[in-house]
Amino acid sequence: MADSQVKALIFDVFGTVVDWRSSIIKHGKNFGRIHGLEADWDAFADAWRGKYGPFMNKVRTGELPWTNLDALHRMALEEVLDEFKITGISDEAKAEFNLAWHDLKPWPDSVPGLYRLKARHIIAPMSNGNIALMTNMAKNGGLPWDCILGAEVAKHYKPDPESYLTAVQLLGLEPHQVMMVAAHQGDLLSASKVGLNMAFVPRPLERGPGRTPDPTPDPSFNYVATDFVDLALQLNG
Amino acid sequence: MADSQVKALIFDVFGTVVDWRSSIIKHGKNFGRIHGLEADWDAFADAWRGKYGPFMNKVRTGELPWTNLDALHRMALEEVLDEFKITGISDEAKAEFNLAWHDLKPWPDSVPGLYRLKARHIIAPMSNGNIALMTNMAKNGGLPWDCILGAEVAKHYKPDPESYLTAVQLLGLEPHQVMMVAAHQGDLLSASKVGLNMAFVPRPLERGPGRTPDPTPDPSFNYVATDFVDLALQLNG
Repeated sequence: MADSQVKALIFDVFGTVVDWRSSIIKHGKNFGRIHGLEADWDAFADAWRGKYGPFMNKVRTGELPWTNLDALHRMALEEVLDEFKITGISDEAKAEFNLAWHDLKPWPDSVPGLYRLKARHIIAPMSNGNIALMTNMAKNGGLPWDCILGAEVAKHYKPDPESYLTAVQLLGLEPHQVMMVAAHQGDLLSASKVGLNMAFVPRPLERGPGRTPDPTPDPSFNYVATDFVDLALQLNG
Repeated sequence: MADSQVKALIFDVFGTVVDWRSSIIKHGKNFGRIHGLEADWDAFADAWRGKYGPFMNKVRTGELPWTNLDALHRMALEEVLDEFKITGISDEAKAEFNLAWHDLKPWPDSVPGLYRLKARHIIAPMSNGNIALMTNMAKNGGLPWDCILGAEVAKHYKPDPESYLTAVQLLGLEPHQVMMVAAHQGDLLSASKVGLNMAFVPRPLERGPGRTPDPTPDPSFNYVATDFVDLALQLNG
């Protein structure tokens, strides 16, 4: 096991720390009310999030230069509005709606769990979200991060190895002193390839009821926990 | 005045938030006890800090490639030990002593003041200290930063304009929405040259008793406060 050598825990955020889907649905409904629009906001949220991977791939392949996630979300929003045949929205209103991603609700255990984990470890987001997004989300949701790491400081999106290794280097640590915490098995396995420890915290409701992802934990995970409070209990003994 | 447009406060740290001198003297005395050494630790602290500017200049002029402050402190320590004729110290013990800079005591008003300022603003260090140093210092001293910015993410030391502008850009803000808080007038004026607001919080004891720096505030400062609690009162009304 990883145990006492682990000095820092770095977290996937969208899905692992916060419930992006119900939050974006809520912001969509609010956007609809303000602009007098009818739409299937559940489908809208899924469509917006669905463009996340493809847009990051444009950066990864060099089709786009380095572009932070706020700007990618904004480009994706144009396409989703188009697909949902929503027109006549000002640039200012679109920019405002794009900030929905700065205001995502933590899972019920996230804040109390992070406080417990913070007592003995450095805790930081290791997200593809940019620093402004993560900082505002932390203030809106009360997430007590010690510092904000992530793709933007590396100018590489996860799961590129540079993304994880930059975080390790900025913490002044070695990979075996850092543990990645995520609800997504691929994220953990990518971090492990460059030497980090892995804690799996499944979030069965991330994609909505009845869409449980990642059912069986990979046997190589150092920890499997039901939530962040459970992880703190397992780590702190 | 700056007022309600200011969304984020970014802080000089060494001297402004923490009392580096008395902390390094304390760590020096402890180092002396462990290794059975006699030295003038007040003078040792001043000599170590005195190498800060010259070593950063080596990076600024290209004599050294980008090197973070932990590594510059470590190189400076070699020179100071040499000057104080202290020999026979292992590399491990030197590396341990170098971490003194991660454990500097906040001024008495710093933590309560930062909590008050944090209620209405993003607060972040804008220091020449690297992210690991700032993160560990925050944990050791209870500094409730929202995120950690600074020279390392820009790969430019203050007062280079890139250092301030990178912080503004990573916050997703415009320069006029950010205020630099510092006990050093030159730091504030450099930030102002690229459009940031300025709050001056003098720390008359930074260099020890009887060595009061920066006595008269520049008339261009947006705020002059006696300490961080006073700054919060002036900003929050």
